[in-house]
Amino acid sequence: MNKILNPSKADWPEILKRPTQTVADIEQTVNQIFDEIRVKGNAAVAKYTELFDGIKLEDLKVSEAEVQNADKEISEELKSAIKLAKSNIEKFHAAQKTEKISVETTNGVKCWQEKKAIQKVGLYIPGGTAPLFSSILMLAIPARLAGCEEIVLCTPPDKNGNVNPAILYAAELCGVTQIFKIGGIQAIGAMTFGTEDVPQVYKIFGPGNQFVTVAKQLATKYQVAIDMPAGPSELLVFADDSANAAYVASDLLSQAEHGIDSQVIMVSTSEKLINAVSDEIEAQVQELPRKAIADKAIENSRLILVSSKEEALELINEYGPEHFIICSENEDYFVQGIVNAGSVFIGNYTPESAGDYASGTNHTLPTNGYAKQYSGVNLDSFMKTITFQKITEEGIKEIGPSIELLAEAEGLQAHKNAVSLRLKDLK
Amino acid sequence: MNKILNPSKADWPEILKRPTQTVADIEQTVNQIFDEIRVKGNAAVAKYTELFDGIKLEDLKVSEAEVQNADKEISEELKSAIKLAKSNIEKFHAAQKTEKISVETTNGVKCWQEKKAIQKVGLYIPGGTAPLFSSILMLAIPARLAGCEEIVLCTPPDKNGNVNPAILYAAELCGVTQIFKIGGIQAIGAMTFGTEDVPQVYKIFGPGNQFVTVAKQLATKYQVAIDMPAGPSELLVFADDSANAAYVASDLLSQAEHGIDSQVIMVSTSEKLINAVSDEIEAQVQELPRKAIADKAIENSRLILVSSKEEALELINEYGPEHFIICSENEDYFVQGIVNAGSVFIGNYTPESAGDYASGTNHTLPTNGYAKQYSGVNLDSFMKTITFQKITEEGIKEIGPSIELLAEAEGLQAHKNAVSLRLKDLK
Repeated sequence: MNKILNPSKADWPEILKRPTQTVADIEQTVNQIFDEIRVKGNAAVAKYTELFDGIKLEDLKVSEAEVQNADKEISEELKSAIKLAKSNIEKFHAAQKTEKISVETTNGVKCWQEKKAIQKVGLYIPGGTAPLFSSILMLAIPARLAGCEEIVLCTPPDKNGNVNPAILYAAELCGVTQIFKIGGIQAIGAMTFGTEDVPQVYKIFGPGNQFVTVAKQLATKYQVAIDMPAGPSELLVFADDSANAAYVASDLLSQAEHGIDSQVIMVSTSEKLINAVSDEIEAQVQELPRKAIADKAIENSRLILVSSKEEALELINEYGPEHFIICSENEDYFVQGIVNAGSVFIGNYTPESAGDYASGTNHTLPTNGYAKQYSGVNLDSFMKTITFQKITEEGIKEIGPSIELLAEAEGLQAHKNAVSLRLKDLK
Repeated sequence: MNKILNPSKADWPEILKRPTQTVADIEQTVNQIFDEIRVKGNAAVAKYTELFDGIKLEDLKVSEAEVQNADKEISEELKSAIKLAKSNIEKFHAAQKTEKISVETTNGVKCWQEKKAIQKVGLYIPGGTAPLFSSILMLAIPARLAGCEEIVLCTPPDKNGNVNPAILYAAELCGVTQIFKIGGIQAIGAMTFGTEDVPQVYKIFGPGNQFVTVAKQLATKYQVAIDMPAGPSELLVFADDSANAAYVASDLLSQAEHGIDSQVIMVSTSEKLINAVSDEIEAQVQELPRKAIADKAIENSRLILVSSKEEALELINEYGPEHFIICSENEDYFVQGIVNAGSVFIGNYTPESAGDYASGTNHTLPTNGYAKQYSGVNLDSFMKTITFQKITEEGIKEIGPSIELLAEAEGLQAHKNAVSLRLKDLK
């Protein structure tokens, strides 16, 4: 793994660079598939399902019988684990509910803010090598808590036209209202435009490969919102001599196995620890089934020695990691000082995988430096705020003359007139 | 004004259509200017300022002396009005502050969520026919309350290289940290990429013409977030026989004077009121300095008769108006039932212009149906959430075995291993 010792600040941009992605040529494919779905609906979706997933489906929608069967195929052990995760995620997201905020800003001028659920949301769950049912928990649980009326899930079928039972089990458990066997670009297109079977949704959530990522970006041109811009997953660990090198290495590798474009970084004030972690990584990676992926990701990754905790914090805030692990005798310093990160894991017994699955926090987080301006998915991601105001006769008499002046100064006479008419009647 | 009596539901999509915008050809201009700014910084910004604003500026930054002078040019009356608006906006947005949320989801598993300010934000304020200083209040006040460190404002200079004093006064009053005389596409580009003088920001807010709108959209490709997608301003009024036709007409006109692409709609259960409002509009519009604009906007606009309050509410939620005025004897029915709207104005003495300036609510709101999935600007728009978790030895023993099972079921062995290593040591 690349070791970088005491870099100068001028080198930070280079050191903190993310692996780049190339997406330009995907746009054309997405536009073409979107256009076809808009015109031909289900037929276009079925066509691309046959082309990309290699299966001709009679029915895009998962049936009640399939959901029932899935229930039988999941071990009781796995069900219990999923339920424990669900319980923790529910507790943490339910606590995020906020009350209506109400203020009388001036006598007779009452303003309030209420949150309302987004009525129709779409969740995308990738298929492929691993059935990421944990992402269903992370998305459907807050959607349900928020009160979304329609929670639509799209996930690609396998070559036999089936969906992994763990996905169906989790979807049923968490209150997904409709499940479709649709993957990739065609899934995003179907939820964006709606088809005979698939409802048009207002916001689309969930991870995906670069085709899905570009499709989600382009979907935002058509009155759909998305959870956040996507990028490869990443982890930054700050560790000093109080850390356990084997644990740190295992955390870095848990991130590295996600994909060849994952990035893992350790920042440390201890050269001794850097060397120990480097050795541990080399040893542990040998045992991993996804070693080839992890090896590639490690090529993008760095162990960075800095001179002080202050320098470390500044560098970390400049990077804005998706996941940030703190294993330090000065943990409070980092907990209080971190401003740009998605989710933070504190201490030797808080591996990133705890947050990925079961601590209760959400694992849908801003990557690629977007932690500087985006939140991870939370209860509010499934809601929007509406403001209200109600003004009495007394209230408009109080603030009306100021509104008249302000509107006049902005050259908006009709704005002024709406107030003047009322004030005249109240004289 | 177009009257539509008892339309069938099949006609709703046509009736609720927004005026369309054409933006495709602007993209190329934006891309070219962005590319130049990225390479040439200030020089490119100055070049386009000369081209579009007709003034060659020595210094893009507004000086301390200019701000001092502006203070002298504003009447005490206007200052008082601005301060009243500021006070109300501050009260309402300060009330939106939320506490840290903390939950022990399982024994020994503590999760919490904290909000942090976005460190650097950019505000765009248009120049042109009216100096929209009220938008500075709506953006800079919550930015300051949130704790943003840098609050950068760009606004175009006039032909003499000056900025309207009301804009400078409001910016200074509300805590803007730097003001630049830069307008249009070049302003968005400067804040997106940064130049020698203009800081690169993480999120850009504010209204603008179609050039600014497209520039903001394209800026999101470059690690910048924006407040929300933009569209022409719009107002929907529900009014029944308890409403005052003159007031309703004045509200509709206050929206119509914004721009020729503004849209105003009245929905009513009373044909009598529809006729009265229509007559009032014709009378009132004659007096308006911006009559030509209002006349054009009214061409896009509709008075719609429906058969019941239930039908009205369904139609209104389908439209998702930016501004929604309720003048009805059944006002509670609409207040409780509205789910898709930006800001709601209740009763005969709550004109939209109250919320535009001084009630305390924000006037930066989702248009074009985006109220279905976007919030208006509020305190949270200037913050993002970070989640934290800290797990004790006891905690990881409790949830660790479930994490191992879940990771294994997803085929992510390294995720499992990060837990297994720790559990082994704790045996």
